[in-house]
Amino acid sequence: MAIKILVWGENVHERRDQAVAEIYPDGMHAQIARLLSSDPALSVSTTTLQQPQNGLPAARLAEADVLVWWGHVAHDEVDEGTVERVAQRVWEGMGLIVLHSGHFSKVFRRLMGTPCSLKWREAGERERIWVVNPRHPIAEGLPEQFALENEEMYGEPFSIPEPLETVLISWFQGGEVFRSGVTYRRGAGNIFYFRPGHETYPTYHNPIVGQVLRNAAKWAYSPLPRLEGIIEGPNVPVDQALERISERGPKVHAPGQSGYR
Amino acid sequence: MAIKILVWGENVHERRDQAVAEIYPDGMHAQIARLLSSDPALSVSTTTLQQPQNGLPAARLAEADVLVWWGHVAHDEVDEGTVERVAQRVWEGMGLIVLHSGHFSKVFRRLMGTPCSLKWREAGERERIWVVNPRHPIAEGLPEQFALENEEMYGEPFSIPEPLETVLISWFQGGEVFRSGVTYRRGAGNIFYFRPGHETYPTYHNPIVGQVLRNAAKWAYSPLPRLEGIIEGPNVPVDQALERISERGPKVHAPGQSGYR
Amino acid sequence: MAIKILVWGENVHERRDQAVAEIYPDGMHAQIARLLSSDPALSVSTTTLQQPQNGLPAARLAEADVLVWWGHVAHDEVDEGTVERVAQRVWEGMGLIVLHSGHFSKVFRRLMGTPCSLKWREAGERERIWVVNPRHPIAEGLPEQFALENEEMYGEPFSIPEPLETVLISWFQGGEVFRSGVTYRRGAGNIFYFRPGHETYPTYHNPIVGQVLRNAAKWAYSPLPRLEGIIEGPNVPVDQALERISERGPKVHAPGQSGYR
Amino acid sequence: MAIKILVWGENVHERRDQAVAEIYPDGMHAQIARLLSSDPALSVSTTTLQQPQNGLPAARLAEADVLVWWGHVAHDEVDEGTVERVAQRVWEGMGLIVLHSGHFSKVFRRLMGTPCSLKWREAGERERIWVVNPRHPIAEGLPEQFALENEEMYGEPFSIPEPLETVLISWFQGGEVFRSGVTYRRGAGNIFYFRPGHETYPTYHNPIVGQVLRNAAKWAYSPLPRLEGIIEGPNVPVDQALERISERGPKVHAPGQSGYR
Repeated sequence: MAIKILVWGENVHERRDQAVAEIYPDGMHAQIARLLSSDPALSVSTTTLQQPQNGLPAARLAEADVLVWWGHVAHDEVDEGTVERVAQRVWEGMGLIVLHSGHFSKVFRRLMGTPCSLKWREAGERERIWVVNPRHPIAEGLPEQFALENEEMYGEPFSIPEPLETVLISWFQGGEVFRSGVTYRRGAGNIFYFRPGHETYPTYHNPIVGQVLRNAAKWAYSPLPRLEGIIEGPNVPVDQALERISERGPKVHAPGQSGYR
Repeated sequence: MAIKILVWGENVHERRDQAVAEIYPDGMHAQIARLLSSDPALSVSTTTLQQPQNGLPAARLAEADVLVWWGHVAHDEVDEGTVERVAQRVWEGMGLIVLHSGHFSKVFRRLMGTPCSLKWREAGERERIWVVNPRHPIAEGLPEQFALENEEMYGEPFSIPEPLETVLISWFQGGEVFRSGVTYRRGAGNIFYFRPGHETYPTYHNPIVGQVLRNAAKWAYSPLPRLEGIIEGPNVPVDQALERISERGPKVHAPGQSGYR
Repeated sequence: MAIKILVWGENVHERRDQAVAEIYPDGMHAQIARLLSSDPALSVSTTTLQQPQNGLPAARLAEADVLVWWGHVAHDEVDEGTVERVAQRVWEGMGLIVLHSGHFSKVFRRLMGTPCSLKWREAGERERIWVVNPRHPIAEGLPEQFALENEEMYGEPFSIPEPLETVLISWFQGGEVFRSGVTYRRGAGNIFYFRPGHETYPTYHNPIVGQVLRNAAKWAYSPLPRLEGIIEGPNVPVDQALERISERGPKVHAPGQSGYR
Repeated sequence: MAIKILVWGENVHERRDQAVAEIYPDGMHAQIARLLSSDPALSVSTTTLQQPQNGLPAARLAEADVLVWWGHVAHDEVDEGTVERVAQRVWEGMGLIVLHSGHFSKVFRRLMGTPCSLKWREAGERERIWVVNPRHPIAEGLPEQFALENEEMYGEPFSIPEPLETVLISWFQGGEVFRSGVTYRRGAGNIFYFRPGHETYPTYHNPIVGQVLRNAAKWAYSPLPRLEGIIEGPNVPVDQALERISERGPKVHAPGQSGYR
């Protein structure tokens, strides 16, 4: 059965910036979905910020195996409720792929616990993306490096937590470097941040970028059952302890009372 | 010059639960501060939830090198603004030591990006804390294990990110285990979570617990200057690129415009 | 196509200790292979120390996707050449599962770069193995904890590198804890250390242990092509640099000369 | 009391290659020691491959707090015994700083458990070293990046284990990137690999390189007592178990017998 990928597009630039609309006439989310769809193991749908509940009602999230996120100019229009719904689904096991300017999305910052800031320059310069972890599943089928002739520069320091694994590092023509492909686990959810994808360049028409996205979607997918209850802090009553113990000392909790949170 | 430690106490149980007040007549924060103060390298002060701005106005945080956090029943009374002030100071380089039930504090969850949930049982059972990383600075002077005869049980799974380093693991009489001492870096800030310290037991009168706290305070302290600007995403203009480049392709940003966030 | 699992057995205890022979009449490797074989996705074969080249000639290793290692009393009988052959295959992408007393095997110590020492007690005590990373692929289908009524105790500190991820932690009746399931990547190879399996107890007849082994075998397997050349340090000639540069300054290497190693 | 730094120099190039001798007339180790000595907190001495026992007899290692290693053309002349002596001292708590071509030294490969291979090009090209972890102790006082106008290129993939923390990443003029400053802990020992330092360029006359070396030496130093016995696997007799247990089941070890290894 195919892995269900949901591509979330902010869908603002492509409707108001002519340069973006020319490259992505159907929206960036549509083109990202097209790259993913070329793999029959992936069943891809799209949603956008403009739809009800930011395009991410609980039911929609519940059926997604992996969420792909592209946002830039409208991070603030994503509701806190949406952020919490997405975070909880990630903790329960939904994969998450955050693209490019999504580094500043509320969702990514929520899950990292850091500012996720970086340097930038919009000059259409050359980027070379190197594979530093050559047999990581996300690097499957990639050359040792590939170039994007025109990209926005993102430069270190990138204020993220130390990654679980660093897969890709970028070289920029103007002299900077950047950790462009990094993985995390948060609860049961696998997270991949992938740097390229500025809206004014045809990055999501690049076949190698497509390969990275498809690899990442399959890597982020977990076939295991949803991790229900991960946000709960359950009590284990004394009489259900695995090893026999007797209650001792004073208590603040009455029997059966929930924990404080 | 001494390291400035600020101990934040929720200060609720000790005023309303007789059992707690007997063990900590001056408040838990006062006793935690006492343990820390026995090291002349540490200059310790305290603050509580009940003071203005949750006891943590910007000026107070600005002068703290390391913040120690004990909270339980009143996590919800900590304002979002306080949480953001603390998080930003951590990113800038303030150390943070989160104690026991602080696992569910807004501050810890904010910085971890995970639910930080766990199992628990309030039965006064025996806990044995093992040092698994014997020459980590936080383990300085510790025996290979030490016992707390009466403690609340916290059991795995503890939904935290994979630690930078795991220093301590607990064994409980009732059959559970728990990662009781774990480290993280978030931005420039060192974070240590330390499990023991239930309010109804005299844990913060234990000398080995005091040793862990003093070690942790010194480990978490950074003598480096505050990392200003970590939340910013600065532009690097084309004419200031380290390597000479020419601007190419379409742009969405006007010259001098800030990035979107 | 099935994943090819090769189970390496030291095969000494089962031939000389009556107690072991009774539990594992066909050898421990045979029983470990039986547990793995119950999954049709795995094609399992066995080999032993007593066969030529310690049972691991290059051709045998070349066709293995995942190697499972059980050894104890005869670590020293494994040749250095065998250790290097195995290490190289791991770097190239072969998965490796090291069991129990294999912590002191030359192969595991070679790949960890640490002593891999621990405490032990052979008393047939109860072990409880807790899942601390509940949706890691190696934890698929496991209960939150499971007990082995009779096991050898292994206690911390376990002198291993900080794991990539910690999946399982053990509780022992006698008061110790142990990181019983830990993962690493070395080159292209996935490594899992799994603690249980003392030869005098029927651990490899336990169905949950079987589940862990099958999960681990599938997790450790990489479908990607062998990472040829990982031990080489190739020169990139100046005229093949991706960006045009001119040679400058003095050199110690003549054109076309290999690097020193 | 000052931290005792021992700089080990291979001391071959500087005696046979005129270009190297002109830059480092007293040997590379002497110049590296000079950079370190400018900090009064560091007490620096040197030793070379040509001295008895490769310049590293046990007594010499025993009194070193941190060992700095530069080798290139004579890795093979370092005895296995020397490698084991160094590794054991690292596990016991001696810091280790491995420089440049030391990536292929027996000592570094021994402690990493990986090939430590990389790409290279000796063209005197420009290297820019970026600080990606701006308040790591090793980055103290560094600018956000610094350039070495002439260096050997080292390119990814660098086959090392995932670092504990990545501190520095290099950009090369010819288009490559490299993880140039990475940390590890092995046993009680802190390890830092620092990329720059090709023998034909004046890298160890650069003041920022000196700053990195001094920072790294102080970071790698542990004031804690030597971790004796880390290579041992001690038995815990049943009658000394922390929790009372009775011996059950068959055994392969006689009472008081050592474990197998």
